[in-house]
Amino acid sequence: MTPQSASAQAHAARATSPAAAASSAESAAHAPSPSTALLTDQYELTMVQAALASGAAGRRCVFEVFTRHLPAGRRYGVVAGTGRLLEGLAAFRFGAAEIGWLRSRGIVDEPTLEFLADYRFSGDIHGYAEGEIFMPDSPVLRVEASFAEACLLETYVLSVLNHDSAIASAASRMTVAAGDRPCVEMGSRRTQEFSAVASARAAAVAGFTATSNLEAGRRWGLPTLGTAAHAFTLLHDSEEEAFQAQVRAFGPGTTLLVDTYDVETAVRRAAAIAGPELGAVRLDSGDLVEQAGEVRALLDSLGNTGTRIIVSSDLDEHAIARLQSAPVDSYGVGTKLVTGSGSPTAAMVYKLVQRTDDDGATVAVAKNAPGKSSVGGVKHPLRSLDGSGRAMAELIGVGAAPQTNGQRTRELMVPLVRGGVVAEEHVGEVGVANARRRHAASLAELPPAAKRLQDGDPVLPTIFS
Amino acid sequence: MTPQSASAQAHAARATSPAAAASSAESAAHAPSPSTALLTDQYELTMVQAALASGAAGRRCVFEVFTRHLPAGRRYGVVAGTGRLLEGLAAFRFGAAEIGWLRSRGIVDEPTLEFLADYRFSGDIHGYAEGEIFMPDSPVLRVEASFAEACLLETYVLSVLNHDSAIASAASRMTVAAGDRPCVEMGSRRTQEFSAVASARAAAVAGFTATSNLEAGRRWGLPTLGTAAHAFTLLHDSEEEAFQAQVRAFGPGTTLLVDTYDVETAVRRAAAIAGPELGAVRLDSGDLVEQAGEVRALLDSLGNTGTRIIVSSDLDEHAIARLQSAPVDSYGVGTKLVTGSGSPTAAMVYKLVQRTDDDGATVAVAKNAPGKSSVGGVKHPLRSLDGSGRAMAELIGVGAAPQTNGQRTRELMVPLVRGGVVAEEHVGEVGVANARRRHAASLAELPPAAKRLQDGDPVLPTIFS
Repeated sequence: MTPQSASAQAHAARATSPAAAASSAESAAHAPSPSTALLTDQYELTMVQAALASGAAGRRCVFEVFTRHLPAGRRYGVVAGTGRLLEGLAAFRFGAAEIGWLRSRGIVDEPTLEFLADYRFSGDIHGYAEGEIFMPDSPVLRVEASFAEACLLETYVLSVLNHDSAIASAASRMTVAAGDRPCVEMGSRRTQEFSAVASARAAAVAGFTATSNLEAGRRWGLPTLGTAAHAFTLLHDSEEEAFQAQVRAFGPGTTLLVDTYDVETAVRRAAAIAGPELGAVRLDSGDLVEQAGEVRALLDSLGNTGTRIIVSSDLDEHAIARLQSAPVDSYGVGTKLVTGSGSPTAAMVYKLVQRTDDDGATVAVAKNAPGKSSVGGVKHPLRSLDGSGRAMAELIGVGAAPQTNGQRTRELMVPLVRGGVVAEEHVGEVGVANARRRHAASLAELPPAAKRLQDGDPVLPTIFS
Repeated sequence: MTPQSASAQAHAARATSPAAAASSAESAAHAPSPSTALLTDQYELTMVQAALASGAAGRRCVFEVFTRHLPAGRRYGVVAGTGRLLEGLAAFRFGAAEIGWLRSRGIVDEPTLEFLADYRFSGDIHGYAEGEIFMPDSPVLRVEASFAEACLLETYVLSVLNHDSAIASAASRMTVAAGDRPCVEMGSRRTQEFSAVASARAAAVAGFTATSNLEAGRRWGLPTLGTAAHAFTLLHDSEEEAFQAQVRAFGPGTTLLVDTYDVETAVRRAAAIAGPELGAVRLDSGDLVEQAGEVRALLDSLGNTGTRIIVSSDLDEHAIARLQSAPVDSYGVGTKLVTGSGSPTAAMVYKLVQRTDDDGATVAVAKNAPGKSSVGGVKHPLRSLDGSGRAMAELIGVGAAPQTNGQRTRELMVPLVRGGVVAEEHVGEVGVANARRRHAASLAELPPAAKRLQDGDPVLPTIFS
């Protein structure tokens, strides 16, 4: 969906004729929430008011999104949220309800309300493709538009990218640690209900194979999984009755949770009830390394050589790495994934780096605040590669292409929005699939040190020129 | 809005006549997103299917929400999200779109889809009032209904309470550290866009006086604040022009951001342009303690004795405590607030503790998993108080009122939902105001050690009987 098509819908929603309303109600079932425009900080709107008054609102501006540092010890970050951002951009509209509320609160004046009512982002956005690896100072997004148009997006852009990139960056370490074993996202109960949906998507970008979250399954076609919790066993008069009920409902290929009472008894019971076709058993507590070995041996001795072992229970990348030596078939990851494994936000900022003056000439701008200074001018990033295609460095040219000294390089910036029109390959199910491929390819290109879980420096140097 | 009234809306939304659709479209502008029912884990639905098949779905169940431990070093936790949860409960409906998607994926069978299509929570919910202090094992929520009705809510309940309680628990330490100085929530850019809205609300429960987040202002009537970012200064040809533009737009009572270039120059400029009526200056970088003192002296020397100093820049409760000795008037808190100051989730779980058997007799149930065992039976909490009204302990009776040994006690559980009908005093603007009062009163009741920021044990012992 492009901003243009959403614009038509927004107009339809504001119309009062029954026919128009009916068409709007029909599409509402599949649309995201009506407007994303108030998911923002008040200062974005007051800056627009002051800039409209000063005459500077129309100056052509370039804002860049970047982080000054990776979380302590991390080797790389993963860009995520780009697709969600572009989907939400289509709904970034100040409709009658939003305008009415702003007016009732007196937050901005009438000329500003008129500007907001007509607001449609008409500028250009470039950025690292979703799933791409980033380093400190990588310009992961570049927004070009009038000051008023670009300024308004700051909060929304950062909310989406900071969250989703934090989750994908943690998820990537987990899938790296898990190697060929599938990781399943099951953290919905440990994060805000809509962050849960976004987390499932970000995890998919970084290689998770499925999620427990149904809304994420619906929105982006992600595979979903889930069978039973301990409550299901406790509900029944015995573990045996609970297992029988589950196998009757879902067949022997289901996953039985075997640690409600005694694991060994439960595994024997599960094998007896479901037979050799039992799909999997899940362990959710205890010392999983030791237990997985015991359960594997027991299953094999019972003839359940094809029954898989799924483990969950506060797993993070380090726990997964330790479990790689145990006969585990897949990992269910919850809390540590949706909280970014210690780094719940990606520390990205949205900074004005270039604007025009009254004569239309471009001026590079930067602030000078201690510890928060920025580099003025538009950044042009390339990733340099050695002869075998191994990534070597993040080359960033300021105001022009970077010096490459003849090295092989790869382009990092791709067009995401041109003249307000969203590039379709980055949104929806296709967007997630493309981001997942991009992540796998970019990760494969990194030096081997990228896969170390120990604390260390960013795996690629960022070189300005 | 009660579940009943929302139910009527949901039916209207599914109707296809233009008149019904028009009525639905009109209300849509003020309604939350159409359905919250897919903001859930798949296993909640598959458990319902298996329980419907086994005949156990109708067993009357009691689920309790509690945490086994506070975040390391924390003295207390703050219940938050209850009002949001009750607001979302009204929209926890499987409409045609949700049912259609579940069917297309084959996630549950037709009898289960029929059950879901008719789903209206008709049970009872009690809990700690929002804003109340909790300790390890405090039963902060109790859901009583058939297994199928109560099971379905697990993920949604935990998503809301785990997030909002984590934020409120961090926010409470910040407002405690800030004493009489106002704290303003400005973390939207560092967390997921809807978590930002919820964070603003949770911070208000814990005593924050305002938020930068507009959607939170709209939904719950929270005071909102915001003036300008560094980009506004950089947009103009000089800092002087930027300050003039802002003062023209918002009057001299505005807040000017003075650390884009040189703080001393900027403060002199701000005072010269806005005069003695200048509302405030904001510092967003550097060593704030030293700088606040210098800026205060400078402002006073310029005759701006009434101009306030607002500081922001990665503040947490410890930074605020350090700044209490500096002449700072209010704190803007962002990243550390919305990420729970190191503890982004409250580790609450939703556990079946009692059910009926086939004869209708109640049975206390508990699992036995290592490190995750639970105590069966319904918990009855009271807070014991000494003669002066100081909180002494969390008394928890299992299956009956706790032993009080003649101590004075205070009731902690309040009715939130009765027979599916939400108690209105817990939702909307009124709900936030009541929660804020509850938090202030419960905090004031705690022993002085509760206000220590150093790591320590929970300030009240939890005593089972």
